[in-house]
Amino acid sequence: MKTYVICSGGLDSTILAYKCAKEFKLEGLISYNYGQRHVKELDYAALTATDLNVPHHIIDISHIGKLLSGSALTDDNIDVPDGHYAEDTMKITVVPNRNAIMLTIAYGIASAKGADAVATAVHGGDHFIYPDCRPEFIHTFEKMQDYALEGQGTIKLYTPYLDRTKADIAAEGEKYGVPFVKTWSCYKGRENHCGRCGTCVERQEAFHLAGINDPTVYDDNVFWKLKTGT
Amino acid sequence: MKTYVICSGGLDSTILAYKCAKEFKLEGLISYNYGQRHVKELDYAALTATDLNVPHHIIDISHIGKLLSGSALTDDNIDVPDGHYAEDTMKITVVPNRNAIMLTIAYGIASAKGADAVATAVHGGDHFIYPDCRPEFIHTFEKMQDYALEGQGTIKLYTPYLDRTKADIAAEGEKYGVPFVKTWSCYKGRENHCGRCGTCVERQEAFHLAGINDPTVYDDNVFWKLKTGT
Repeated sequence: MKTYVICSGGLDSTILAYKCAKEFKLEGLISYNYGQRHVKELDYAALTATDLNVPHHIIDISHIGKLLSGSALTDDNIDVPDGHYAEDTMKITVVPNRNAIMLTIAYGIASAKGADAVATAVHGGDHFIYPDCRPEFIHTFEKMQDYALEGQGTIKLYTPYLDRTKADIAAEGEKYGVPFVKTWSCYKGRENHCGRCGTCVERQEAFHLAGINDPTVYDDNVFWKLKTGT
Repeated sequence: MKTYVICSGGLDSTILAYKCAKEFKLEGLISYNYGQRHVKELDYAALTATDLNVPHHIIDISHIGKLLSGSALTDDNIDVPDGHYAEDTMKITVVPNRNAIMLTIAYGIASAKGADAVATAVHGGDHFIYPDCRPEFIHTFEKMQDYALEGQGTIKLYTPYLDRTKADIAAEGEKYGVPFVKTWSCYKGRENHCGRCGTCVERQEAFHLAGINDPTVYDDNVFWKLKTGT
């Protein structure tokens, strides 16, 4: 199965890239610059593409991100909140329709290149606040694409983590020997992971729950325990 | 109903913009530079935005268009074929997933701006070769968006021409007093419409079938009659 992986450079999508390289024929990684506050994560996606020896397509949709203002991920006037993903304050990190936009573009590339699948690392933990990561969205999206590309070959939307936790994914990363230090999660773009933003809290919790040593350097490696009651 | 119209500057989408301005609250026009051979049509979309006194968002996805190579609309190495849309040769004008990409971006903008609808001028004549203009695609797309934007307000996909002909649309344009000379259809980007490419043939046929005077200047205004048996 010739597969493109949407890879942000974060933990989940990097592990997914390794999985697809192992199980299928990995055709390339697709990353997006959607006007996020920093593009540090894209450098990490590039590292993975190099390690896996596949092309890396970086798609610049930052001018669209600017139009979709009002999210803490793209708007410099809004602070990135600290805390756990499941909290109400995290709603501010929603970029309207981001996932659907990224997926349709990836499907266009996959179709043009004659690939069989697009893989994305949406997982159970995303469901709380991101409606475009929920199973009913994923299934309807795939159906929509079947119609959109009728006669041009079917492209599968491969989402092996849809009903799994981030801890499950971390465990799979360990199995595939993914170099975790070559992934970047933090919403802030400093030298080290901040340890306090939603994705840093989630990352630390995932390694802990999976019982895996976390090699990441955090500026604050205690905060997540308070937030998750660990 | 606060509505954004996807407007290419062509006949159908310009008429749709006038219709929405008349019937609803037109919030703005959205146009795409997807790496088409010429962007002359975008200047025509801008004229309409000015005439209707609404913002005009031009979204540049040309670098994506380049990745989606192999279409005569984006690849300079492939000739734009002459003839009627319904012919096999026109398949070369398919840009993989173009409509789904444009629609998801428009939905993102509409969601960010608090609009109620995205309008697009897909019509019955598109169904032959463009699967992403067919009713089953349109309906599934709207369903997919309902899931993607759950909790953020429902956005309608307004497609009044889905089961109408281009001649029907031209007739409606006449009703709304649309200045047809301020629309551009031709796939080639010369001073005048060529009169021979698929969209020029279709345009001339539509005016003829609607019994409306066509003010467009074509370099060849006979070819379409041979092609359509008129």
